[in-house]
Amino acid sequence: MSEIQLNLDEVNQILENALREDIGSGDITTNLLFPCDAECKAIILANEEGLVAGLPIAEMIFRKLDKDIVWSEEKKDGDKVEPNQVLAEISGSQKAVLTGERVALNFLQRLSGIATLTSRFVKAIHGLPVKILDTRKTAPGLRILDKYAVRVGGGFNHRFGLYDEVLVKDNHIKLAGGITRTINILRERAVTQKRIEVEASTISEVEEALNVGADVILLDNMSPKMIIYAVGLIKGKALIEVSGRVTLENVREIAETGVDFISVGSVTHSSRALDIGLYVV
Amino acid sequence: MSEIQLNLDEVNQILENALREDIGSGDITTNLLFPCDAECKAIILANEEGLVAGLPIAEMIFRKLDKDIVWSEEKKDGDKVEPNQVLAEISGSQKAVLTGERVALNFLQRLSGIATLTSRFVKAIHGLPVKILDTRKTAPGLRILDKYAVRVGGGFNHRFGLYDEVLVKDNHIKLAGGITRTINILRERAVTQKRIEVEASTISEVEEALNVGADVILLDNMSPKMIIYAVGLIKGKALIEVSGRVTLENVREIAETGVDFISVGSVTHSSRALDIGLYVV
Amino acid sequence: MSEIQLNLDEVNQILENALREDIGSGDITTNLLFPCDAECKAIILANEEGLVAGLPIAEMIFRKLDKDIVWSEEKKDGDKVEPNQVLAEISGSQKAVLTGERVALNFLQRLSGIATLTSRFVKAIHGLPVKILDTRKTAPGLRILDKYAVRVGGGFNHRFGLYDEVLVKDNHIKLAGGITRTINILRERAVTQKRIEVEASTISEVEEALNVGADVILLDNMSPKMIIYAVGLIKGKALIEVSGRVTLENVREIAETGVDFISVGSVTHSSRALDIGLYVV
Amino acid sequence: MSEIQLNLDEVNQILENALREDIGSGDITTNLLFPCDAECKAIILANEEGLVAGLPIAEMIFRKLDKDIVWSEEKKDGDKVEPNQVLAEISGSQKAVLTGERVALNFLQRLSGIATLTSRFVKAIHGLPVKILDTRKTAPGLRILDKYAVRVGGGFNHRFGLYDEVLVKDNHIKLAGGITRTINILRERAVTQKRIEVEASTISEVEEALNVGADVILLDNMSPKMIIYAVGLIKGKALIEVSGRVTLENVREIAETGVDFISVGSVTHSSRALDIGLYVV
Amino acid sequence: MSEIQLNLDEVNQILENALREDIGSGDITTNLLFPCDAECKAIILANEEGLVAGLPIAEMIFRKLDKDIVWSEEKKDGDKVEPNQVLAEISGSQKAVLTGERVALNFLQRLSGIATLTSRFVKAIHGLPVKILDTRKTAPGLRILDKYAVRVGGGFNHRFGLYDEVLVKDNHIKLAGGITRTINILRERAVTQKRIEVEASTISEVEEALNVGADVILLDNMSPKMIIYAVGLIKGKALIEVSGRVTLENVREIAETGVDFISVGSVTHSSRALDIGLYVV
Amino acid sequence: MSEIQLNLDEVNQILENALREDIGSGDITTNLLFPCDAECKAIILANEEGLVAGLPIAEMIFRKLDKDIVWSEEKKDGDKVEPNQVLAEISGSQKAVLTGERVALNFLQRLSGIATLTSRFVKAIHGLPVKILDTRKTAPGLRILDKYAVRVGGGFNHRFGLYDEVLVKDNHIKLAGGITRTINILRERAVTQKRIEVEASTISEVEEALNVGADVILLDNMSPKMIIYAVGLIKGKALIEVSGRVTLENVREIAETGVDFISVGSVTHSSRALDIGLYVV
Repeated sequence: MSEIQLNLDEVNQILENALREDIGSGDITTNLLFPCDAECKAIILANEEGLVAGLPIAEMIFRKLDKDIVWSEEKKDGDKVEPNQVLAEISGSQKAVLTGERVALNFLQRLSGIATLTSRFVKAIHGLPVKILDTRKTAPGLRILDKYAVRVGGGFNHRFGLYDEVLVKDNHIKLAGGITRTINILRERAVTQKRIEVEASTISEVEEALNVGADVILLDNMSPKMIIYAVGLIKGKALIEVSGRVTLENVREIAETGVDFISVGSVTHSSRALDIGLYVV
Repeated sequence: MSEIQLNLDEVNQILENALREDIGSGDITTNLLFPCDAECKAIILANEEGLVAGLPIAEMIFRKLDKDIVWSEEKKDGDKVEPNQVLAEISGSQKAVLTGERVALNFLQRLSGIATLTSRFVKAIHGLPVKILDTRKTAPGLRILDKYAVRVGGGFNHRFGLYDEVLVKDNHIKLAGGITRTINILRERAVTQKRIEVEASTISEVEEALNVGADVILLDNMSPKMIIYAVGLIKGKALIEVSGRVTLENVREIAETGVDFISVGSVTHSSRALDIGLYVV
Repeated sequence: MSEIQLNLDEVNQILENALREDIGSGDITTNLLFPCDAECKAIILANEEGLVAGLPIAEMIFRKLDKDIVWSEEKKDGDKVEPNQVLAEISGSQKAVLTGERVALNFLQRLSGIATLTSRFVKAIHGLPVKILDTRKTAPGLRILDKYAVRVGGGFNHRFGLYDEVLVKDNHIKLAGGITRTINILRERAVTQKRIEVEASTISEVEEALNVGADVILLDNMSPKMIIYAVGLIKGKALIEVSGRVTLENVREIAETGVDFISVGSVTHSSRALDIGLYVV
Repeated sequence: MSEIQLNLDEVNQILENALREDIGSGDITTNLLFPCDAECKAIILANEEGLVAGLPIAEMIFRKLDKDIVWSEEKKDGDKVEPNQVLAEISGSQKAVLTGERVALNFLQRLSGIATLTSRFVKAIHGLPVKILDTRKTAPGLRILDKYAVRVGGGFNHRFGLYDEVLVKDNHIKLAGGITRTINILRERAVTQKRIEVEASTISEVEEALNVGADVILLDNMSPKMIIYAVGLIKGKALIEVSGRVTLENVREIAETGVDFISVGSVTHSSRALDIGLYVV
Repeated sequence: MSEIQLNLDEVNQILENALREDIGSGDITTNLLFPCDAECKAIILANEEGLVAGLPIAEMIFRKLDKDIVWSEEKKDGDKVEPNQVLAEISGSQKAVLTGERVALNFLQRLSGIATLTSRFVKAIHGLPVKILDTRKTAPGLRILDKYAVRVGGGFNHRFGLYDEVLVKDNHIKLAGGITRTINILRERAVTQKRIEVEASTISEVEEALNVGADVILLDNMSPKMIIYAVGLIKGKALIEVSGRVTLENVREIAETGVDFISVGSVTHSSRALDIGLYVV
Repeated sequence: MSEIQLNLDEVNQILENALREDIGSGDITTNLLFPCDAECKAIILANEEGLVAGLPIAEMIFRKLDKDIVWSEEKKDGDKVEPNQVLAEISGSQKAVLTGERVALNFLQRLSGIATLTSRFVKAIHGLPVKILDTRKTAPGLRILDKYAVRVGGGFNHRFGLYDEVLVKDNHIKLAGGITRTINILRERAVTQKRIEVEASTISEVEEALNVGADVILLDNMSPKMIIYAVGLIKGKALIEVSGRVTLENVREIAETGVDFISVGSVTHSSRALDIGLYVV
């Protein structure tokens, strides 16, 4: 396993759900063909270029079906892979291999797709003091895995849920009666180990947020020009995050404005699966 | 709700997991800002063109947070939407709206993205007697929803898991000792309410499958030319499915070869989220 | 374990529920008597003649209470047993043996009862090209085990649930407006990997089913005479299943009519427990 | 509902498991036939004579699939029914009726079968001061329902599990070193709100149990003659239970010996399903 | 582990809940600091005098986070400990140690607190033929552990829940129409393996309970003088339990009246945590 | 319900576990006495002075047993109560009242005990600009409720788990190689919406923490004199929290040193249950 942190215990339930979903009352094809099990050997192969993520998940899937499976990794999470490179070899129960194949690949392809796309954003801002962040726009139920893949790709994780950060968005502000009032309420009621982050989509909102002492200001859907102007106002007084319509094309331009973080929803909600296959050998 | 079948009971657990994942020990921003709840009104708006899917899911998310929410749909699942069109209006607890927003949108954006992409494949083969099928390449844990979105987009569902169809793939054949032996084993052991489908990637495999009387033959990763040749051999003796590297560009060419089904993994494993937002009004 | 397929992972939850149900807050008798555990040896013994099924389940129950238990089988699932024959020997924690005894025997007795009764039906039709099928009339929550026991007894499994076969019964037909209309709807909407089976209880229903091309026709509650007549009409054009009031007395007569399958609810809903005991030695 | 106690909350999980087991990823036949739901009416009918049990369970199954179902009972749990008598009428979603039919009937047929057989044992000892008890030989996972059905049939419940009574069986005695030693250990360690029951299968064991002051003595597998002798020894000094090979033929003879309880395993482990059907009208 | 019975399987779910509650989406401090894990060594140390309980629980917590942890106990459950005495040494994954520390200590401190307080009550009645009992006043969800700690402290367990004893309290009597009527109903309906215990708070209630033959009488909130009087009436005819406002100061006086049991709610609902720490060495 | 935020959905699982734990296979006393249910009325009464917390929980418990219960509160969470004051009246199913009584009181007594003790700490620092915080030393499985009770008592919540704050404790520092190195690692790897809090137990650790720019410094187990000295060093450069051996006697002295937060483990790990009863009227 790579140095990127992934607590396998935490993902256990997700993997069991995924297996249950696919296997249901039994893998009828495999069970009919192989009433007595035997050993087999298979390889997991990249069919296109990318950054691999999810190998420990794939191993765990097969191990749940055969605890004695032998799994040997040629690559580890975070490695760049080329077409036709072997990621891992697996030896063990042929029923485990056949039954687990699709679920293991579904995880591996999705996570590698996220890591690959994230790594492209990270590469695009190479050399600049900016961090690429993910969002909460993850596949429902898969957040800790999606966010792991972002880390594998070189990105950083924004909050994991509504429970671990105070982030005031446009709808909060509208309902609470403006930025000033919102921040003042939060200051009074929150234990101040939490920084307070506020979304701003106009320059006057940026100014208001600065005046009441927001810790982090999130510039939402601003043009690069507006971002430059806002950075001029804020820099040094609060941390700056940018979000909204960030693409591989415009991310460097945004990063050069001097912001601290750029959060990119598309790395988790719109990434493509990386083409990876399993082949009995 | 549209005429497309979706059993809300079946998805209940998925929705509760998604809420738990996002809310955890509590939505700290909303809870600090609004210790006493109040009513609010919000709209769900399409920010780009596409086919909407998942509105009953979004409603269910909000209703889990406030059972008295008033939800009124302007569009229903399966409708085409344009940018800035209202999909639904929601009135009720402002805490429920703020806390449920992201989870509801995550489902709505993913499912609408799948439905939109599927509908493009369906449109591309308009007028031809071919059905677009999905695959088991869905986000782990979300299969029944992903497959629902495919139906909303005009596609049909291939098997739901390993439990409901006999589908013999390359790895099965390799381990069982060839197509003929595989099918004969299955015939003997299976109760014959199940059709037997076999994957073939060469013409000689197609011929072998035909000889032993496969019910459905899956032409995997064949060129259109090979497909035409295979269709000539098979037509009338077995049903024909095509899979592998099907794109919006080549799907019509494949469909015109006279096959019965085209299965497309990308509609679930590589679709983009449709851009949809929620705005307090 | 025998060659009959049983995925022990799938039954894990069932076994844990059964143990929790019986043990609850603790086995007070055993816990009071044996605060310090010790080793013991016990045998599992048939008290009457029959076909044994469920030995791997019994082992698994004891292993859940003491993972180091030594379990050695004298018989395996599918073996015929005589009174006073030892099925298995067990050595290990006396607390595990005492606490697990009843739950292990409850499974073993039920499953052996089902396998024994099934094997009598199978024997009754010996030499005829007919398969004995089970039904969905299983003990709620125990279906995969009940159906396993049927396989052990030489029977075959009909569908596992509502999710894996299309089977049109009388109530469907009544509500959908007749057999012809029902089948036509199904043809249009279903992906045709599924065969379509239709229940018919009169000759005119058989004819209607044939006319619209049903794949399998289920003759429900017909007399042997009517079955013979129906077989004459259908044979070669569809598969034929018989169900309803099948007994050990009439099953051979039915089988001789030339049908393909005979499904028997009583093997799971009305079988007797086989008398099996556990004795500390 | 009848006066017999059944806590529906307790059985909720059992019912949801049963529905999940049968419905899985969806009732494909019903869903394909009826994409838009409609109302229907159906009756539940006895096809043979017996004692009905489980009507509230059946109702609960249908209500889980359609909370607005209208359920009206013609009979209630504990009523005697004749062939062709209507037990209940149900109006509501036709999809709920079709999808829930088998699960509802599986419960109703099993529980009515148990109640019917129990009532025959109760009738056989009519007029004698003896109570018919059940055992822990219930279908794994269904104990609270099986024991409810016994009460409906006029029987009484022995312990619910290993947690609520101290019952010393042959294997305990063998491992603990005899009846005297066993009881003495229990006396010292148990809080004495619990009576202590001991199994005895010989007269000398009965004498030993009496000498150490057992509260209840369980005569296991004794002939009526031995039972009479044992009753003479015990009567007035301890309560007496009989178990082992009790049948409808010998139960009255046993009851007339003057014992207090007769426990009968077959009412739950070997009862036949009562034939009950559901018919759309 | 001590001779006191604790079924670790039964507590597994409690421990997993506790870990999930504390760790949620991940231990961010530890994960950020130690992306690659290493070994460490730590000791668990008493910071004050008391009776230790819960060491097997603490071990189990750490083992869930690292199955290869080496755990060596210097003390075992039930041992008296002095300040600065080492209870156990632990070697293994430093991430497991850091992440599990608080949850392990929360159990250990609570259970040791309960065992310590219980042992003070037991010591206070030393030499008298009375048993100290606990109550159902335990922390919700932790009952089997709280009651285990009571046993470690030398106390005995009253009933585990509403399911395993018949105990008639004031509210039952009021609603059922008096003690006599209550006991008569119970006699008729209960299988008599259960003793019947009745609460009495006046002498006339004691007399009524005696007259109808209660098996155990619970003297609730009586003064020592009243207790003496009641004991005079009852002794030999029923077992006697005392409850209500029992303290370390008055427990011996109560015990000397000749009652059989004294139940003390405060040992579980109002005990202090024992001060125990974990120190990396 | 009071203005203090408590999400009842989040606690639902806790309450169901608690009921299951107590009721198990059924409340035998109540079920035997009242086979047919009836209505009753009861009051919940304070037997001593304190601050009430948990009334919505108690209501929810009873409502789970009878959804039509009528619950009317005389007091609400956060109110001060005197002995013999009625907290709530309840009308409805007598079985629900009898069966739910103990579980409802267990929650109410524990939470009111926590709120009462917390309010005493809050009162002791009245007028000073310090916040009383709780810790993670809560009853395993009850954290969100324990922390709710702290808020009801006027305290504030420190982190909810390991997932929502970065808090570096002595064991982290020892393993990571000192405060400076620890903070530098965290700065590099953490997304800076999180403040970084560091534990310091000596003045030189305080100085080191200041030098590397810790956001919050936790003074652990320092004497008031040392705290004053540390406050002099830190004030204005970081937030200050004090923990360790804080009592009602010394809390004001500590608060007067000018720290920002005082965290008190005893409010959750060593509070006494508040004496509250339920009486049928």
